[in-house]
Amino acid sequence: MKRVGKQSWEFENKPRIIGASSVVGPEEGEGPLKDYFDYVYDNLELGEKTWEKAERRLFEHAAQMAIANAGISKNDLQFFVGGDLMNQIISSSFSARQLGVPYLGLFGACSTSMESLALAALIVDSGGGDKVLAGTSSHNCTVEKQFRYPTEYGAQKPPTAQNTVTGSGCAVVSSTGKGPIVTRATIGRVMDLGIKDPFNMGAAMAPAAADTIIAHFRDTGLEPGYYDLVVTGDLASVGLPIAKDLLEKEGIPMEQTVFNDCGLMIYDLKKQTYVFAGGSGCGCSATVTYGHLLKRMEQGELNKILVVATGALLSPLSYQQGETIPCIAHAVAIEKEGAN
Amino acid sequence: MKRVGKQSWEFENKPRIIGASSVVGPEEGEGPLKDYFDYVYDNLELGEKTWEKAERRLFEHAAQMAIANAGISKNDLQFFVGGDLMNQIISSSFSARQLGVPYLGLFGACSTSMESLALAALIVDSGGGDKVLAGTSSHNCTVEKQFRYPTEYGAQKPPTAQNTVTGSGCAVVSSTGKGPIVTRATIGRVMDLGIKDPFNMGAAMAPAAADTIIAHFRDTGLEPGYYDLVVTGDLASVGLPIAKDLLEKEGIPMEQTVFNDCGLMIYDLKKQTYVFAGGSGCGCSATVTYGHLLKRMEQGELNKILVVATGALLSPLSYQQGETIPCIAHAVAIEKEGAN
Repeated sequence: MKRVGKQSWEFENKPRIIGASSVVGPEEGEGPLKDYFDYVYDNLELGEKTWEKAERRLFEHAAQMAIANAGISKNDLQFFVGGDLMNQIISSSFSARQLGVPYLGLFGACSTSMESLALAALIVDSGGGDKVLAGTSSHNCTVEKQFRYPTEYGAQKPPTAQNTVTGSGCAVVSSTGKGPIVTRATIGRVMDLGIKDPFNMGAAMAPAAADTIIAHFRDTGLEPGYYDLVVTGDLASVGLPIAKDLLEKEGIPMEQTVFNDCGLMIYDLKKQTYVFAGGSGCGCSATVTYGHLLKRMEQGELNKILVVATGALLSPLSYQQGETIPCIAHAVAIEKEGAN
Repeated sequence: MKRVGKQSWEFENKPRIIGASSVVGPEEGEGPLKDYFDYVYDNLELGEKTWEKAERRLFEHAAQMAIANAGISKNDLQFFVGGDLMNQIISSSFSARQLGVPYLGLFGACSTSMESLALAALIVDSGGGDKVLAGTSSHNCTVEKQFRYPTEYGAQKPPTAQNTVTGSGCAVVSSTGKGPIVTRATIGRVMDLGIKDPFNMGAAMAPAAADTIIAHFRDTGLEPGYYDLVVTGDLASVGLPIAKDLLEKEGIPMEQTVFNDCGLMIYDLKKQTYVFAGGSGCGCSATVTYGHLLKRMEQGELNKILVVATGALLSPLSYQQGETIPCIAHAVAIEKEGAN
């Protein structure tokens, strides 16, 4: 592998996704991508007594399914690279306990989906492992409870709010085998333009998404038109137009490509009005990428995509102490073999 | 770089620590290692209005000092790899905001010190970056408040409890320059032998430390006597004897080397009785390694060391929900150039 520009990696040994999975909850199962997901739970409890245990079950289910879809056993994995939104990333770490695979825990809020894929690709590309599992999860009720209010309170939300996706997505990155290739990654820097409102994450995260997209094209020398699709993590209906504006001001020709957002794709905003501005959470970009986008690649509808997962790095405590919201975005390019 | 055995990496391009730092609080400044630390604060507030802001200041101070000690500017850094114990790793992420360097956030509880060093070495060794900052922090008052009780309550503790270190340690890993070489890393798996008592972390973490040490010697084919010192992260007076017993049962000849623990080294347990079984926290192994051990290497007293940072991956919520404590340990070998 080699570093290109300031903050991007080009993987030279074709690390590839040989198996992936997407497991979601009932709201995502009512959305436009429902037929793409590998498994849809019709309830939020998953047979567990707490929301946190339910999220962990979701993650464990997705991890097992990705391993099965890759046609390997968990003993073939060298490493598991994962994280989630819970304090001390308990969903990920307790899943790692069940897997028993050497484990690197991450926290990048909702950007963890692509942070984990970038690091898994780095490990495989550099010879540090033949097969590495990357994954993340979120659950609507764990996240709302931890960051805002327990859903049971029925608290009202402003229209800029987003709906945390209940879902987990995992991928097995391998040095050999068949599957789309992870070709590049751009690691983002923390951006904070002073937004304090935790009900307006899209606006807070948009500058981070734009900054990483600008860095990606600057570092790689590519143009947006190189990709069939550039998709952000969870900017939703408020953040995506802001990111578009910021990129336009920087002269990045995003009209050359399709520019969309996982948080807008996962729900039908007109019918599912309870999602407000769209989806969010680690599970949003993970399930849309590993469920929907990889299948569209397999079906020949997409050849080259750039997934720009966004994350808001606040904590309830940092908010209570008057801090603004630092945000980050990590971009990973996935390409069909022979697509060049 | 190449993978050796199941879960270890051998770095082939000599990633080296060209500058490091250790910044601690008053209790650590009263301990036996006081003269080794780069900076000792005589108070816990650091001029800030909250404990969390104080911890962040500690981290920012250590990051700036490591960069200065490396003789570079922050613009020379490609990446910052870090984490801490706070929910949503706010100490690390807010420090990343100040640094403005592309950032990979980690969570491995107290094992984050060596998780970040292993990943920084991986990035540098594989050509993914020329200069990468690794670091972590903890603060006694933020951690006690988040995981147990605010220190202001004056809650009593059992003798198995440990004292969270107020400190931050950072290192600049570089592909060129002078400094001790990061030669190997072993990534641990999650171990959980059923301990539930959050006031007995040493006992909970000992099996993870032993498992990673066993894996390290199995994977690399080395014997403990290869190292001048094998040091665990924060097992303290309860955990270290358990780890010793476990290793003895597995026939690992630890008597060939000096086997110690950062949590025992950082305080004088006889004089500083308020630390109970010893030190803990991300800042414990980070400041002992980057403050004390690297200086002893520079002075020629140590040539080859293996630092096995341990972490307890519980959250207050997982404990409240009756879960046992999953633990992990990551080992990194650091050697003086030409020590072979």
